[in-house]
Amino acid sequence: MTKRFDVVGIGNAMVDILARCDDAFLAEAGIEKGIMQLIDMPRAVDLYGRIGPAREVSGGSAANTIAVIAALGGQTAYVGKVKDDQLGTIFAHDLRAQGAVYETALAPKDHKDETGRCIVLVTPDGERSMNTYLGVTEFLTPDDIDEAQMAEAAWIYLEGYRFDGPDSHAAFAKAIAATRAAGGKVSLTLSDPFCISRHRDAFRAMIRDGVDLLFCNRAEALAMVETGDFEAARAELAAEVDILAVTDSENGCYVHQGTQWWHVPADPVEIVDATGAGDAFAGAFLWGITHGADLPTAARMANLAAGSVIQHIGPRPEADLTALFREAGLV
Amino acid sequence: MTKRFDVVGIGNAMVDILARCDDAFLAEAGIEKGIMQLIDMPRAVDLYGRIGPAREVSGGSAANTIAVIAALGGQTAYVGKVKDDQLGTIFAHDLRAQGAVYETALAPKDHKDETGRCIVLVTPDGERSMNTYLGVTEFLTPDDIDEAQMAEAAWIYLEGYRFDGPDSHAAFAKAIAATRAAGGKVSLTLSDPFCISRHRDAFRAMIRDGVDLLFCNRAEALAMVETGDFEAARAELAAEVDILAVTDSENGCYVHQGTQWWHVPADPVEIVDATGAGDAFAGAFLWGITHGADLPTAARMANLAAGSVIQHIGPRPEADLTALFREAGLV
Repeated sequence: MTKRFDVVGIGNAMVDILARCDDAFLAEAGIEKGIMQLIDMPRAVDLYGRIGPAREVSGGSAANTIAVIAALGGQTAYVGKVKDDQLGTIFAHDLRAQGAVYETALAPKDHKDETGRCIVLVTPDGERSMNTYLGVTEFLTPDDIDEAQMAEAAWIYLEGYRFDGPDSHAAFAKAIAATRAAGGKVSLTLSDPFCISRHRDAFRAMIRDGVDLLFCNRAEALAMVETGDFEAARAELAAEVDILAVTDSENGCYVHQGTQWWHVPADPVEIVDATGAGDAFAGAFLWGITHGADLPTAARMANLAAGSVIQHIGPRPEADLTALFREAGLV
Repeated sequence: MTKRFDVVGIGNAMVDILARCDDAFLAEAGIEKGIMQLIDMPRAVDLYGRIGPAREVSGGSAANTIAVIAALGGQTAYVGKVKDDQLGTIFAHDLRAQGAVYETALAPKDHKDETGRCIVLVTPDGERSMNTYLGVTEFLTPDDIDEAQMAEAAWIYLEGYRFDGPDSHAAFAKAIAATRAAGGKVSLTLSDPFCISRHRDAFRAMIRDGVDLLFCNRAEALAMVETGDFEAARAELAAEVDILAVTDSENGCYVHQGTQWWHVPADPVEIVDATGAGDAFAGAFLWGITHGADLPTAARMANLAAGSVIQHIGPRPEADLTALFREAGLV
């Protein structure tokens, strides 16, 4: 049965504010390096006042993933909330211009919060430290989940970050139920070690109840299983899902299915800005498996897409990924 | 006498929306390549709906120039109007974060227009075609010109584009008078050939009345003098001002003072995005002459700064210009 959408993503709709800084600035501003931290509006205003000149680009983890799949020609939709304000207009434009269907109701102009934004500070080593003001995107509710749309999805892709917020769990549960009832599959990214520490039990329950494909990186795998043994963490997570894909920075990735597993190395690249690497990995992997690639091939595509997005400032691909895949003999 | 500010710039405060397109798109959308065209809000909305994913960066011609001077360590201020909205916040942040004083009163939230924006379409040859919705920046009035601030300026820098709009001429006249009365000097950029065709007589009167330094490019010099003879155009303009600086793309620039003149070639660079080249040229030139450089040296700095800004997407410098000048033995 062919579905209208290869992948429907659900996540935090954010505009990224990207600026460079050094490690001393992170220390002085009390920012933990390399992770995502939630901030409120006063902190966002204060921090914005202290950073250097910036550029604004549409972001949001699952939205970045959807943008990659759309850029590869996949059929996609996205669910995530922005406000009827200028940043919301930017977010919606960029996603639709990439070819994704995006129909989530806007938070009205008189909502007390604004469109979410993430102040992304990029250090000279290319690492990014994210400071997220969720704004209206925190208020995605089950009402924003269109069951008919979920039924049209071969896969849905759930962003772990989206578990912060009052109605998130109910919204995800509704999306999962509608997708599975129509024969679709469910993928989830764990997003961030600190996000895991906030939601470990809920993640565990969701994984057991019906996640077919789990994405995470090394730190998240260790945090999820609460161990320091990477191999053991992968084995334990692999036993819970059909497919497990774990990224390991410059060491490439590990893909598990049942008792089979592959380590797929990545080519070395110069890291300009790591923002969006994991999102691009998931996007290319999902595009691959929904377009006939076997798991190791999808993993090679995913490594290439992640490697491409970290070679420039900004979380979404600028290179022609299809051409990259063709050069590598993957399509 | 030392002034507080090396340069105070006055211009259209804009946020740039930068997207790539091909020449066929420009033709189809009815956009004239390589120039700035004014558009209204409905056209801005329509055009935005047709372009691909974009990134947002602070722009505005004179603001870019001020950003360059500030990045080089010069003392600067800027005058230009944004609204109390999200794009206005971005514009103000980026300018202040670069070190410029920026105190122009915001247009209030209930103003019918929004912060100005420029949809910049970059073709594969690196040329940019600009589509400007002026928004509130059109409503800069003489009241926005602080005579005390002008009196503190060694130089003011006036953007030709700012001549579009109801009270522009009066605002410029007030700024020029206050600057000159306090012994400061006046520089002007002609901005764009079509801008010249809208305001040729007013520009001519302003130049005769008291412009010490005139910036333009080849096309603007020809348009201003209404001739096809580049040498004759330069000679005629040079006779009207103390210093004339004319850029000529990859051929570098010509600087005239009285009957003396220099042709200063530029090193060849790969053009990624020409946006901001002329602005960076003017900024480095002004920084040079306010920091002891002779005219040919200031011109070499200006060529380097312009060459730097066209090697990346976005109108403001990302490289360390001081280091570039040092490598070239200019400082």
